[in-house]
Amino acid sequence: MITITPLQRQRSPENPFCSLSQRYLRIKSKMAAPMVCNHRGHFLKILHLLHGRPPFSRAFCDSFIAKSVKDLIGVVENVGKDFEAKAWIRGLRQHKGVTFLDVNDGSCAQDLQVVVKPQTVHNNSEFTFGGAIEVKGQIVKSQSKGQPIELLASSIHVTGACEAEAYPFKAKVRHPLKYTRQYPHLRSRTPINGALMRVRSSATLAVHNFFQDEGYVNVHTPVLTSSDCEGGGNLFRVQPSDDEKDDDDHFFGTPVYLLVSGQLQLETIACSHTKAYTFGPTFRAENSRTRRHLAEFYMVEGEIAFTKSLQDVTEVMEQFVKSVASAVYTKCSEDVQFISERTMEGTRNMWGIDLHSEHETFLVHHCGNIPVFVVDYPKDIKPFYARQNGDDKTAAAVDLLVPRIGELIGGSLREERLDVLQRRIQHSGLQDDYQWYLDLRRFGTVPHGGFGLGFERLLQFLLGVDHIRDVIPFPRFPGSCLL
Amino acid sequence: MITITPLQRQRSPENPFCSLSQRYLRIKSKMAAPMVCNHRGHFLKILHLLHGRPPFSRAFCDSFIAKSVKDLIGVVENVGKDFEAKAWIRGLRQHKGVTFLDVNDGSCAQDLQVVVKPQTVHNNSEFTFGGAIEVKGQIVKSQSKGQPIELLASSIHVTGACEAEAYPFKAKVRHPLKYTRQYPHLRSRTPINGALMRVRSSATLAVHNFFQDEGYVNVHTPVLTSSDCEGGGNLFRVQPSDDEKDDDDHFFGTPVYLLVSGQLQLETIACSHTKAYTFGPTFRAENSRTRRHLAEFYMVEGEIAFTKSLQDVTEVMEQFVKSVASAVYTKCSEDVQFISERTMEGTRNMWGIDLHSEHETFLVHHCGNIPVFVVDYPKDIKPFYARQNGDDKTAAAVDLLVPRIGELIGGSLREERLDVLQRRIQHSGLQDDYQWYLDLRRFGTVPHGGFGLGFERLLQFLLGVDHIRDVIPFPRFPGSCLL
Repeated sequence: MITITPLQRQRSPENPFCSLSQRYLRIKSKMAAPMVCNHRGHFLKILHLLHGRPPFSRAFCDSFIAKSVKDLIGVVENVGKDFEAKAWIRGLRQHKGVTFLDVNDGSCAQDLQVVVKPQTVHNNSEFTFGGAIEVKGQIVKSQSKGQPIELLASSIHVTGACEAEAYPFKAKVRHPLKYTRQYPHLRSRTPINGALMRVRSSATLAVHNFFQDEGYVNVHTPVLTSSDCEGGGNLFRVQPSDDEKDDDDHFFGTPVYLLVSGQLQLETIACSHTKAYTFGPTFRAENSRTRRHLAEFYMVEGEIAFTKSLQDVTEVMEQFVKSVASAVYTKCSEDVQFISERTMEGTRNMWGIDLHSEHETFLVHHCGNIPVFVVDYPKDIKPFYARQNGDDKTAAAVDLLVPRIGELIGGSLREERLDVLQRRIQHSGLQDDYQWYLDLRRFGTVPHGGFGLGFERLLQFLLGVDHIRDVIPFPRFPGSCLL
Repeated sequence: MITITPLQRQRSPENPFCSLSQRYLRIKSKMAAPMVCNHRGHFLKILHLLHGRPPFSRAFCDSFIAKSVKDLIGVVENVGKDFEAKAWIRGLRQHKGVTFLDVNDGSCAQDLQVVVKPQTVHNNSEFTFGGAIEVKGQIVKSQSKGQPIELLASSIHVTGACEAEAYPFKAKVRHPLKYTRQYPHLRSRTPINGALMRVRSSATLAVHNFFQDEGYVNVHTPVLTSSDCEGGGNLFRVQPSDDEKDDDDHFFGTPVYLLVSGQLQLETIACSHTKAYTFGPTFRAENSRTRRHLAEFYMVEGEIAFTKSLQDVTEVMEQFVKSVASAVYTKCSEDVQFISERTMEGTRNMWGIDLHSEHETFLVHHCGNIPVFVVDYPKDIKPFYARQNGDDKTAAAVDLLVPRIGELIGGSLREERLDVLQRRIQHSGLQDDYQWYLDLRRFGTVPHGGFGLGFERLLQFLLGVDHIRDVIPFPRFPGSCLL
């Protein structure tokens, strides 16, 4: 039996996996690798994972995956070096005696210009807008404006041409975001959607980094739930596809829905780990087809035990937004710049969706078009878990309203007093479903609070993107679930 | 209108948000803050987010959230400092003239010992196992063995006692993991489940760090899908809870299921960004109640364009496992040590579940109980997208088998040849559903490959945890969907 024990700390920086391998291998006998065995008449080659192989180094890994255009572009010091670009053609210009290709590998907004001399290639017609190529050559100083370097091709292999007639994107055309939405399997190839993908990815890491740096434990709150966070409707019901219609609770033994919010589950962990966060998909079966609603969207939720004032919660909310904004604007500055230029082209003046939204808009305007916190809402319009203030009228709840978006984050202190919470739950008629939630107050209750925000709305706010369907790779909304 | 533009890089380390604030505020007029307005007869206080407030500093943030026990424990240099612990009581010993409390705030496996003299507290009976306290005092050198420091209490406030009779956990009892599973809302308070939460959280960040460091773009593949990755059954069907039973496709206009694998969606992004990964929940409506199956589990999937050999894919798989293992064993060494000691107590010899599992077990045993890669499977037992080898018999597919778990990761080269893929899809009778997938080959196809693994099985493997329900906070399986 293999023994897996913690790494000791004497690993050397040069060989970080050495101790790990030794530990893995501590008990096993020495074997030759690779070896071969025959099973069920089929030929199976068996390679050993952690035996007889050198530990990985960066160089070993890089030997088969091309260094990306991002690492290369704009750095004059790379002149004279060999490079192999593996990328898609975004631009194509034939001149007498030379062909220019603008290629992009998705690692950054910038294209790499490839210079192809006639002797390098037999048939220029193989180059197609949208086609994929592998091109080896040397980095040279660019003769053109707009980029310091370019790649002088010595050999080119077209891995896949592109059927121009059928391809929905055309060379030199700036397709509107709305147009590209029809092609969720292809739109990430357009410059604007490609940039949005990278920003979303960086923002995702920034969310995790903020919370983990602050000592929060990550919790994968479940997608499938038998609890209904706010006691409201708009739920998606889940059942096995082969279920009999009249017996649709048999799989889990209880009706199961898609998660609306992970807050209540997150509170259970905050009540043991003090600080907890979750970041994952949540669902609304609302018939809303607006520029800020989705049926499936990502929520970020944080929960903090031993927190007594709403001000404490708003501090964390503010710090969170600033931290993610700072990370995104720093790490993806070219992409953000590019997106901003595009999204600011057409100004839009249509504000808000309904009365509530108009109200938010009014407040943001009133305060000078900056983000504002609204605190201490009337208790009756807030869910049962929001902590009542001493005035018996309001709850310690807060929303952060931002320009163009309206509500970005909602937070509250949670009712930690068992008797008050019991009354609120009874008042809502939910006493049968939330005994487990009351248990958190029964066994070592603590004052606590937290907040939740829609990740897509944060991206809209940070990037000035008008429609929510452009900041999520596969948008789901009434009437549409493509792919 | 507010203008949001990328941060310039002259931010100073002391004041990382300064430029950001200035940018946000560039256009707006100066306002007094905080301000008050009256809306709908309710009193609303309005605070400004990014105006008239000092930028956050770490100290500002720490002023309201207690420094954690983790930062404190085991560091003799903290002797003489003031500290406020906010934590739950895990141990309680009354001696004449002094009470010892072991308290834990979830930040680490270790408890902090609190020494309470009679003059500090009026009524010792307020201290209960599982209760929550806030205790101020001074760090002193510990008189006891087992810890270098302890907290000498000067004031104590019990925020919540614990009803001992009803509380399912008892002092000085080591509850089996199986017992704690009955209480998903409380079990994270036990030492072993608390440690598992922290390790899962660290492993989550390690997954993101591995891919992001290697230049992969994160993709939130959708939970709701109209595609069925492998053409198989075991799907969960989704519909709004208020739907009429006989018209259950009206919401999305198409039957919608929960995601089985994000691979095909991920391929669309790899075909624009070269390297892409996803990490999120996936679902199986299988009636499997084994120690390695869940109805909802987390998958990590990576996809790499311009990859031509299966060996390239296995290199990344190996590097991934080593990277996460290294991060977890380094960052959570105490927790891993603690878990290992507990999980190794009862040895278990039951291996595998079915024939396939027995087969995997055989191979792992045969190779000396180390992880093994099995490559080049018969093509007919692999899905349509696995790339055919030249022998016309096998596919370029690989599984990584590990001791105790069986299959940990599966990978393959993907069929990038349009004509071959078309035949395979037609053979499977799926031609109507996968035109979008064929488009990826029609428009600039590239050789590519990738892999996917169950995150919970990775945790089981790394930690030696026998049952999968212990490495996920809210396990879902046939007959159970608690909370």
